[in-house]
Amino acid sequence: MEEIAVYRKEHFNAAHRLYRPDWSNEQNELVFGKCNNHNFHGHNYELIIKLVGKINPDTGYMIDLKVLSDIIKEHILKKFDHKNLNLDVPEFAQLNPTAENIAIVIYNILRQQLPAQYKLQIKLYETERNFVEYPVSIL
Amino acid sequence: MEEIAVYRKEHFNAAHRLYRPDWSNEQNELVFGKCNNHNFHGHNYELIIKLVGKINPDTGYMIDLKVLSDIIKEHILKKFDHKNLNLDVPEFAQLNPTAENIAIVIYNILRQQLPAQYKLQIKLYETERNFVEYPVSIL
Amino acid sequence: MEEIAVYRKEHFNAAHRLYRPDWSNEQNELVFGKCNNHNFHGHNYELIIKLVGKINPDTGYMIDLKVLSDIIKEHILKKFDHKNLNLDVPEFAQLNPTAENIAIVIYNILRQQLPAQYKLQIKLYETERNFVEYPVSIL
Amino acid sequence: MEEIAVYRKEHFNAAHRLYRPDWSNEQNELVFGKCNNHNFHGHNYELIIKLVGKINPDTGYMIDLKVLSDIIKEHILKKFDHKNLNLDVPEFAQLNPTAENIAIVIYNILRQQLPAQYKLQIKLYETERNFVEYPVSIL
Amino acid sequence: MEEIAVYRKEHFNAAHRLYRPDWSNEQNELVFGKCNNHNFHGHNYELIIKLVGKINPDTGYMIDLKVLSDIIKEHILKKFDHKNLNLDVPEFAQLNPTAENIAIVIYNILRQQLPAQYKLQIKLYETERNFVEYPVSIL
Amino acid sequence: MEEIAVYRKEHFNAAHRLYRPDWSNEQNELVFGKCNNHNFHGHNYELIIKLVGKINPDTGYMIDLKVLSDIIKEHILKKFDHKNLNLDVPEFAQLNPTAENIAIVIYNILRQQLPAQYKLQIKLYETERNFVEYPVSIL
Repeated sequence: MEEIAVYRKEHFNAAHRLYRPDWSNEQNELVFGKCNNHNFHGHNYELIIKLVGKINPDTGYMIDLKVLSDIIKEHILKKFDHKNLNLDVPEFAQLNPTAENIAIVIYNILRQQLPAQYKLQIKLYETERNFVEYPVSIL
Repeated sequence: MEEIAVYRKEHFNAAHRLYRPDWSNEQNELVFGKCNNHNFHGHNYELIIKLVGKINPDTGYMIDLKVLSDIIKEHILKKFDHKNLNLDVPEFAQLNPTAENIAIVIYNILRQQLPAQYKLQIKLYETERNFVEYPVSIL
Repeated sequence: MEEIAVYRKEHFNAAHRLYRPDWSNEQNELVFGKCNNHNFHGHNYELIIKLVGKINPDTGYMIDLKVLSDIIKEHILKKFDHKNLNLDVPEFAQLNPTAENIAIVIYNILRQQLPAQYKLQIKLYETERNFVEYPVSIL
Repeated sequence: MEEIAVYRKEHFNAAHRLYRPDWSNEQNELVFGKCNNHNFHGHNYELIIKLVGKINPDTGYMIDLKVLSDIIKEHILKKFDHKNLNLDVPEFAQLNPTAENIAIVIYNILRQQLPAQYKLQIKLYETERNFVEYPVSIL
Repeated sequence: MEEIAVYRKEHFNAAHRLYRPDWSNEQNELVFGKCNNHNFHGHNYELIIKLVGKINPDTGYMIDLKVLSDIIKEHILKKFDHKNLNLDVPEFAQLNPTAENIAIVIYNILRQQLPAQYKLQIKLYETERNFVEYPVSIL
Repeated sequence: MEEIAVYRKEHFNAAHRLYRPDWSNEQNELVFGKCNNHNFHGHNYELIIKLVGKINPDTGYMIDLKVLSDIIKEHILKKFDHKNLNLDVPEFAQLNPTAENIAIVIYNILRQQLPAQYKLQIKLYETERNFVEYPVSIL
């Protein structure tokens, strides 16, 4: 039974603001620049889920992508899509919603929903030009 | 002297919320669905500016795209990028920031900044799958 | 009340074969080349629906894209997605499923489902490099 | 017999420099900026050919895209691909190879190669963000 | 002599159907859903070949991409493009043509055609949103 | 403190020619084909910079992408954009500007500009279909 990587791409639209409540306006402005706009700004986030596992010889699937897509919809998109990450998503109540932190939060949520037999990696595009990947390796 | 169309693509990231302040929560929810989230959501907007005019035989340019790009940066991106359209952009104080209305607002701003010799058309992508064009024709 | 164009992009995956049952194998091979493979081949079709109409001043929408998307799903995607155009779609029982003819069939179906107040145009990508548009103009 | 638009996308890679030999270095620098680099720079040009005509009811094709693609390869790509537009393409010996002028040159070449029954329009992407269209309308 | 990775992207269009001949219609329907349509459906597959090897200091190439592209054309595209994977490609006579299995079949074919000095990895896009990679690592 | 990968995409337009001055025209033609055009050709290069490092728990950033983007602009784009790689970039005075060598040159420049705490990998697209990655692994 061979190992293979399977990818599923989804997207969500959300507002966010980068800042630390315990910092002064000046410090937030200095560190986060225009991303610190008090009234929020937003993105069309593109999310790529990578799973590594063995192919099921009965079906030729590693995982049914319909099943994976439903898990992402239920546990990520419902929570993030058309939301304000700072105000609507409890995980970011005390955590700055940078692309890095959003990717880690998504990883932690999906890690609990997916069978342990699958290795998991998240790639998150905040814009076409800025994106992150977590964890760094799943080999 | 021949007429030609020249296009310049730019983008901006913004938060917005679709609703009418004079409607009840129920009616806003019914009409605007998840786009009515009180705490805003956001998009990476892609903006394509189309200008039609005559080629300058001295340069082979219809317009210097550096000049066009600077006008867009100064009058549109400064106003819209990393902003909350409802709260930060005066044009939407009383106007619902649908893709349709954003395109018309951008058209009206740029129309005043661009010489009358150029015909102008705006294409605005709210997502890769939802986009609008205004005006309908510039022939 | 201003006119504006609104676009919605959808996609479907389908198999097809180009041939005329009343032609010889040789003639079909000569005219349709590898697209005439007896056992079918297939595409990920990208479909862009363009509607032109007046903005509703109450909502700022020309049309609720959720409504448009549901109409496309119900009347086009259910009929075409994961189907064999030649064998599963009655409109192509006697009609060669070229990109040109598929676009016209989609236009005719949607024209009946959409209110007459909207002008309608179809763009259909068979591949990233080959695509068609129907009708030629809706001005 | 219905009219339809058919598109074919091709690409070529070429070097060019924007300048006028009868201008001083200073004036060329002022007008064309970094595009005036003496040693040339280059682009991956994307070319979209649009043809409008009637569908052949025998085949369901407006034009066999293989035929169109062969004409583009023979008369455009052979002439432009992996070439220096200023030095290798006679049409630009006295003509500044701006995107506008390249589009018009391509139009004039293809107009002679294509049957008069097809209306022709050229879209040329110099970069993903800068592109032109000629002629403005073929209605 | 340094190691580097070189990539070449190609595409092919094919029809397929997911099912097991030894299963009942009900079981095939349950497991493969709409991908089990008896009359086949199809895709525009995007194929990315990754080779890892040492740069030839004489040329600055790791491999001449023209040579790699010709090998892919001869041994993969001729076999898969505009074909029905289930009926026209012997490798899938007994093997379900899932994206996973197609990637492994392509890997096995190219592995035999390419010199052993190159490490080889396949990425195959069935749609823009569903894709696979094999083998999982070539480090 | 967790490790994460952060990516930034930039682009530049440049002319180049592939050849070795110590080879005959015939040998250059044989090995480099149309890429050996004496008068140069050009590309829109897409450049993806990948950095791996630990997230700063104070900011939620691994690196401020504005800082990374400024380093790329200052040390790569100023040197490469709208330039002739063979004639204008000293690193290629004796080195053939293949995609492989350009990626290594960019890596070596950025490696000196970036703090040692970040692991660095370069992906360079010469065209949408031909691209390279260096080094092969940064695990």
